[in-house]
Amino acid sequence: MELVKEIRICEVGLRDGLQNEPELLGVEEKLAYIDRLADAGVKVIEVGSFMHPKAVPQMANTDEVFRRLSRRDDVEYRALIPNVRGVERAIACGCTKVKLNVSASRAHNLANLNATPEETVAGFKAAVELAEANGITISGSISMPFGSPWEHEIPVEQVRRIVEAYLTEGISEISLSDASGMAYPSQVYELCHKMRDWYPEVSWWLHFHNTRGMALANVYAGMQAGFTQYDASLAGLGGCPFIPNAAGNLSTEDLAHMCEVMGIQTGLDTVQIMEMGNDLAERLKRGNLSYTAKAGRNSDLIRELPTGQGTNQTSK
Amino acid sequence: MELVKEIRICEVGLRDGLQNEPELLGVEEKLAYIDRLADAGVKVIEVGSFMHPKAVPQMANTDEVFRRLSRRDDVEYRALIPNVRGVERAIACGCTKVKLNVSASRAHNLANLNATPEETVAGFKAAVELAEANGITISGSISMPFGSPWEHEIPVEQVRRIVEAYLTEGISEISLSDASGMAYPSQVYELCHKMRDWYPEVSWWLHFHNTRGMALANVYAGMQAGFTQYDASLAGLGGCPFIPNAAGNLSTEDLAHMCEVMGIQTGLDTVQIMEMGNDLAERLKRGNLSYTAKAGRNSDLIRELPTGQGTNQTSK
Repeated sequence: MELVKEIRICEVGLRDGLQNEPELLGVEEKLAYIDRLADAGVKVIEVGSFMHPKAVPQMANTDEVFRRLSRRDDVEYRALIPNVRGVERAIACGCTKVKLNVSASRAHNLANLNATPEETVAGFKAAVELAEANGITISGSISMPFGSPWEHEIPVEQVRRIVEAYLTEGISEISLSDASGMAYPSQVYELCHKMRDWYPEVSWWLHFHNTRGMALANVYAGMQAGFTQYDASLAGLGGCPFIPNAAGNLSTEDLAHMCEVMGIQTGLDTVQIMEMGNDLAERLKRGNLSYTAKAGRNSDLIRELPTGQGTNQTSK
Repeated sequence: MELVKEIRICEVGLRDGLQNEPELLGVEEKLAYIDRLADAGVKVIEVGSFMHPKAVPQMANTDEVFRRLSRRDDVEYRALIPNVRGVERAIACGCTKVKLNVSASRAHNLANLNATPEETVAGFKAAVELAEANGITISGSISMPFGSPWEHEIPVEQVRRIVEAYLTEGISEISLSDASGMAYPSQVYELCHKMRDWYPEVSWWLHFHNTRGMALANVYAGMQAGFTQYDASLAGLGGCPFIPNAAGNLSTEDLAHMCEVMGIQTGLDTVQIMEMGNDLAERLKRGNLSYTAKAGRNSDLIRELPTGQGTNQTSK
């Protein structure tokens, strides 16, 4: 069984994880978490988004966070942006890495924006040009390429059209984002394998939610297809507002732990990551959805052997 | 990517799922659940265990449940037994399929029973002979072959010795049971692949707990190694008493749903299974740990398209 030897994890808890939470984090708090993430070995951090502050008040202080960031050379700090306005804000606050997003759902995009997804991507041209003119690296995300609540299955040709639209605009770092939590491992393997074959020039990311419990199975399938970049969220924070009662993002702790036991390098210190996840869940007054946070890592389990000799069967 | 086309699921909720619950289910209730499981397409049901009633009071009525069972020809009703005494009880109540268990942990077995795991299996001879003389099919389980809280890693040679001890006793249906929830997918694939190669005569089962969120990833790895028989528990009931706060067994709902979306036949009606899991969790006054129970199946998600034309980005 072929597997990658090393992956990069982007922590999205401070963006995807916070954006539906009732508790708002202040600038100082966010800066402290970002520092702790970097201390714990996280090399890519999604700091926030440049959406309209009325639409996403949790992200209203993103500009200020970027302004006051203690940057480390080996850490990438990125922001999600909706359009060219996001690039303008990035320039103003010193953010040097931004990510656009389009839904893979043609029906939803047409009904919502009166444009196909690839037309929406073509409309990102101004954002791309402004970013490039200002030394800002720009990447793209495709949400729901593994299935949407509107069409269920998304034809692979539809995903291709969006990838090609991004490439036409000069964007070659692309994330496949299962925001609806409908991806399943055989599909992840198949789609990722094809995408890598067709577009070897693309730097791919995967973003999974644990909506139906398959997030780690999907990561495993992605690793078999050679994908090496994964988003995850501390304490499994986040989730899709379209799916009521659903679990959140894949938790960073569980992803880092699975890699640790499989011998796949992430650079993350799992102990520090687990402490941070507990702290953040407590701060937000909500449960920690990480399994590893509850059960401990495999290596934390050291039990003393019984000293007496019983006759009972081992519990199973 | 090679995958099996069909799997058999054994529902263990009425045994592994109940055995640590404070609520006791009566005979009538258990019989009703067993009937509903068969109605929902479950072909193998672990009805209970023949442990000492003082040790596991939740299972004290297992004999009575077997006596009053409305058997269906195409359903297998099995019980977990500790030793030859379990076979005697099986004979007396008409149970025709039993399962022994031994821990793969050599250190734990030596400390607890003053015997190696393979010596413990050799001690099952009387149980096997009595079962065979009475037309009872006997199978064996190896718990914690993927890691134990005492040794962490279990050498593959240790697992081989136990498999060979079972084969020596004439037992060729063997379950690998990750009761401590330490299995990880690359390991599952490797161990299962080897076992299938070395012992093609064995009818293998896999039993995973979702302790660190990897249960479905482990099933996926098992399916890639050609394993076709899996235990699961309604609502994810159960868990290992050695691991405090840990999640329970792999949930039947999530396993059946993952197979459904991947086109792998299970014979289970996922709607009925989801209803049963909710009913059982409610009866036991505890949460339902199935993700699919919370979020719905992929195919349950049918959202209406927006009718207006907005300018907001799709939430991601």
